[in-house]
Amino acid sequence: MKIAVDAMGGDHAPRNPVDGAVLAAAQIDAEIVLVGDEVAVGAELGRHGNPSGISVVHAEEVIGMDESVATGVRRKRKSSIHVGARLVRSGDVDGFVSAGNTGAVMAVTKVIAGTLQGVDRPALAVVLPTQTGRVIVLDVGANVDPKSQHLVQFGLIGDQLAQQLLGVSRPRIGLLSIGEEAVKGNELVRSAHRVLAEQSIDFIGNIEARDLYRGSADVVVSDGFTGNILLKTSEAAVETLRVLMREEFTRTVAGRLGGLFARGAFQRLRGRVDYEEFGGALLVGVRGLTVISHGRSTPRALSNAIKLVGDYGRHGLDHRVEEALANQVAAPAE
Amino acid sequence: MKIAVDAMGGDHAPRNPVDGAVLAAAQIDAEIVLVGDEVAVGAELGRHGNPSGISVVHAEEVIGMDESVATGVRRKRKSSIHVGARLVRSGDVDGFVSAGNTGAVMAVTKVIAGTLQGVDRPALAVVLPTQTGRVIVLDVGANVDPKSQHLVQFGLIGDQLAQQLLGVSRPRIGLLSIGEEAVKGNELVRSAHRVLAEQSIDFIGNIEARDLYRGSADVVVSDGFTGNILLKTSEAAVETLRVLMREEFTRTVAGRLGGLFARGAFQRLRGRVDYEEFGGALLVGVRGLTVISHGRSTPRALSNAIKLVGDYGRHGLDHRVEEALANQVAAPAE
Repeated sequence: MKIAVDAMGGDHAPRNPVDGAVLAAAQIDAEIVLVGDEVAVGAELGRHGNPSGISVVHAEEVIGMDESVATGVRRKRKSSIHVGARLVRSGDVDGFVSAGNTGAVMAVTKVIAGTLQGVDRPALAVVLPTQTGRVIVLDVGANVDPKSQHLVQFGLIGDQLAQQLLGVSRPRIGLLSIGEEAVKGNELVRSAHRVLAEQSIDFIGNIEARDLYRGSADVVVSDGFTGNILLKTSEAAVETLRVLMREEFTRTVAGRLGGLFARGAFQRLRGRVDYEEFGGALLVGVRGLTVISHGRSTPRALSNAIKLVGDYGRHGLDHRVEEALANQVAAPAE
Repeated sequence: MKIAVDAMGGDHAPRNPVDGAVLAAAQIDAEIVLVGDEVAVGAELGRHGNPSGISVVHAEEVIGMDESVATGVRRKRKSSIHVGARLVRSGDVDGFVSAGNTGAVMAVTKVIAGTLQGVDRPALAVVLPTQTGRVIVLDVGANVDPKSQHLVQFGLIGDQLAQQLLGVSRPRIGLLSIGEEAVKGNELVRSAHRVLAEQSIDFIGNIEARDLYRGSADVVVSDGFTGNILLKTSEAAVETLRVLMREEFTRTVAGRLGGLFARGAFQRLRGRVDYEEFGGALLVGVRGLTVISHGRSTPRALSNAIKLVGDYGRHGLDHRVEEALANQVAAPAE
């Protein structure tokens, strides 16, 4: 097992990617390939005493965090992202982790690493915490106007991910909508519903945000526009509650005391709802798994992302996904 | 000014609607018409000593809260919802408040009360609390597959609502999307963006959930599917944070103390994020304003809904909306 890591990606590169790689290397049985400027990366590795199991592949360019995707992708073909994606394409590594420019990582990986057989469009997946466990949501942003067959593919991919990465033997697959009945939702959802119901997965039908967060499904399928709205709204609502609470906590003496005692609870809570437990968003449906981490990822988040790619490779998920898609049941006649 | 209230709608009817009407009648200068079973409603009014300014119009049928919308709408033409909508249609009242079956209220009102001139499709609007104030979001569920011209109409309607109901002289109108740049979003959003930018409103472009909740816009326009997802996700994320926090608060002695002291803060907070401050969702674009309140609405929520309808009528919003739509700027050539 070999995993490539973009050593130049993120707000604290190459330090954080290197620290993350060192953390991960100590915990998993895989070789880690750091992709980036060999001098800068070498210096960081030197700080750690050049641990075994970590090698460096040079990349002479870097796509900036705020650089235009179009420009970066076209003009910087020697970027760490390009080099990492090529390592995936050639089969030299099992997957790639980058905390770099999200749009660039998506665009480059799709084109260079290529999609798996049977996949029309890669999707972005995230693992969210629920009141009782975890749920995989896909797509959260790669496809803003997909067709229903793409949603069906997302369901089949999600089924494999949940089995292997969450350890659920028969994942419950839900379809994000605005009412539980099959007739509820927009045209896309109603049409995807009919086809998902034919597949040999545990399709539990439409699911609303409330039930998603209560843990009623292991996988929730969505178009990328709606899935992104779900993700961003969740973050925004929680942030809003925190801001309003902080105001309330400082309003009275009892409130200030409450805030003081509650601080520990908040800190543990932040750990539990840590969206980076899985290190970032998963670009699935492409060869290998690419994890796109936050630009501000900590070494721990990056190490988790690397371990996730290791799990993905170990379970042979590329092959399982292609098999699941090959066994897909065709859409019923209207 | 006259306002109709569905006395038979909601989990605690006719008690709560009557109590809400009595509350509102004491505070605003409007006659309230309670629509429902005259014996049952009369008995409730008797409890309050038959206050002045409140009359009863008999309706002999009731559409149940969980009754199929299709059946209820077709078979119970003498329901309190039908009678209330007819009072709006005939101009006898300025608007209607119902805590009854949401689907039935929407369907009946659209058909019987009728849409305003220039409105192709009515929309459901809600007023949400932000970190700094309030925002009107529409549509949150009436139109799951609208065209871009409908979103433009929602923007113009929202502009009028925010001016008159929120008292904002030049409302900032945003379009819900997954990135701020005009090119971000799905086809519908990109197309609506172009036309909204031509209107004589303060269109601030695409807006994400984070900025919505930070108070960057006074009105946020969306298709009904996405808007509903935003609304439900907000509620679900806050519920989830509460559940996780309760668990954390009970875990340690300091946490329990924190929870105890924090209780007051939580209670005040609940008041601030009270989605019923405006008494429910506003069905706009139809003649008069219909407010669809939660089935479990308190008398206070219903009284707020009634006052909102009063405000709507007082500002002549039907007329203002029709005027704004008549002055709409046509879509630019592609």
